[in-house]
Amino acid sequence: MAGGTWFTEDQREGLELSMQIKETLVSKQTPFQKLDIYDTYKYGKLLTLDDLVMTTEQDEFVYHELITHVPLFSHKNPENVLIIGGGDGGTAREIVKHPSIKTVDMVEIDEQVVRMSQQYMPFLAQELTNPKVHLFFQDGVEFVKNAASGYDVIIIDSTDPIGPGEGLLNTEFYRNCSKILNADGIIVSQAESLFNNPDWVKQIFAKMRNVFPVVQAYDGTIPTYPGALWCFAFCCKTPEPLDFFDAERFNRLNLDLKYYNKDIHRACFALPEFAKKLCNGD
Amino acid sequence: MAGGTWFTEDQREGLELSMQIKETLVSKQTPFQKLDIYDTYKYGKLLTLDDLVMTTEQDEFVYHELITHVPLFSHKNPENVLIIGGGDGGTAREIVKHPSIKTVDMVEIDEQVVRMSQQYMPFLAQELTNPKVHLFFQDGVEFVKNAASGYDVIIIDSTDPIGPGEGLLNTEFYRNCSKILNADGIIVSQAESLFNNPDWVKQIFAKMRNVFPVVQAYDGTIPTYPGALWCFAFCCKTPEPLDFFDAERFNRLNLDLKYYNKDIHRACFALPEFAKKLCNGD
Repeated sequence: MAGGTWFTEDQREGLELSMQIKETLVSKQTPFQKLDIYDTYKYGKLLTLDDLVMTTEQDEFVYHELITHVPLFSHKNPENVLIIGGGDGGTAREIVKHPSIKTVDMVEIDEQVVRMSQQYMPFLAQELTNPKVHLFFQDGVEFVKNAASGYDVIIIDSTDPIGPGEGLLNTEFYRNCSKILNADGIIVSQAESLFNNPDWVKQIFAKMRNVFPVVQAYDGTIPTYPGALWCFAFCCKTPEPLDFFDAERFNRLNLDLKYYNKDIHRACFALPEFAKKLCNGD
Repeated sequence: MAGGTWFTEDQREGLELSMQIKETLVSKQTPFQKLDIYDTYKYGKLLTLDDLVMTTEQDEFVYHELITHVPLFSHKNPENVLIIGGGDGGTAREIVKHPSIKTVDMVEIDEQVVRMSQQYMPFLAQELTNPKVHLFFQDGVEFVKNAASGYDVIIIDSTDPIGPGEGLLNTEFYRNCSKILNADGIIVSQAESLFNNPDWVKQIFAKMRNVFPVVQAYDGTIPTYPGALWCFAFCCKTPEPLDFFDAERFNRLNLDLKYYNKDIHRACFALPEFAKKLCNGD
């Protein structure tokens, strides 16, 4: 390895991604996990939890645009959104770009992720003080048991299903999400690495199918995530949202995005053959 | 870094990908470059040239299926194909799956790449002894200056435009390729990393546009390549091949592929917004 200080993610099975760091901005143990924020040469600011890459300044746009705009432009009039996780704020930042949004409830188990992002990664956390955004520092699993219904879109923006995120890969959790989702609503969940975590991908889709009549996979490429090709699960109670794309609204809003566009909205559902088999449980 | 022996690719700008190796199978200096083949834990056999990842057993299918089947299924009757580079044999292996193919001329500057792949990576090189495949160990730049015309598809399966591959990123080279390409022919070139080599991507597309009236980009995700999201340039003399997909042939051949499929054929041309701007020279 070249000189200097490096962050290395052990991606298991003898694979590592290393980024040279200019400076460690914060390194602490929260009540839930180890949290570090670095300034790197290639990817700008880097947030890690338990030494796994959560997001970087240079490629966060892929994940955050895909997990939000795909469901939001598939919904006819999204007003009330629930985020489970999403502590860095990138998901909320994209959601409030849609003027139809009235409330964003964000349930993050670890307040320190929000506070440290606000301090060191304002490009992500900038909208967490938006009056439309309501922060709940509690376990998402508990929140959805007791929440009032009425959500148009629910976004599960969680860590891997180990540690604090473990309870989120669970049929009961998905069932409680479904209860508080409107009849024409959409749930999107991050669904792990198609190349590196095929077992998690399979489990997520199998459990989603226990609850939702319509479950489709879409994907996008996030260079700093293990295996790069990342999967998302798109779930709804009727097939309509899958076929709907609000082209008029997309053109009118003219959002300044770096990954998502009209063509990507359709194309991201076209999965490589091996990935189709994984997500369809073949 | 965890214990054991590792191969590390310096992807520049403070980014490294490391793979733990079980065994070094070959390590030699050829007349053109340093060549190594390793057996790794995560990705199986790994071929590197000048310490850059060329291909791995576990993800080679993405690159080789995309660089071949996209142009071949866009052509009405591909019979004669030219490969520039492609020494490991993966591209030739995919091409001869199409029964319409009569000849595959493969021009590889470094015979040792072919010989070592035949010895250590037969899953890639297995078709290089196919009687349809004709090997020329010479410089592709020189070959296309003097070759007879008549190619339906030309595939530029080169290393990065440094070292032995340097002369391939060149308007004159593309012009000579165009001369030996049939009027309804297609040229596809690997076109570098959308995230990590934006300058190379821009140069390739700018120079292709000097020569070809129709130049379109498509992409795919190769986890072990820098930045993962890899670009390909699709060039032709008329727009027809872009709109044509031989669905009947695709269904009839029923190839056992792992990445490419009908949906991917269209979807791979839908580029992320930042990539569209790069390839279109905005």
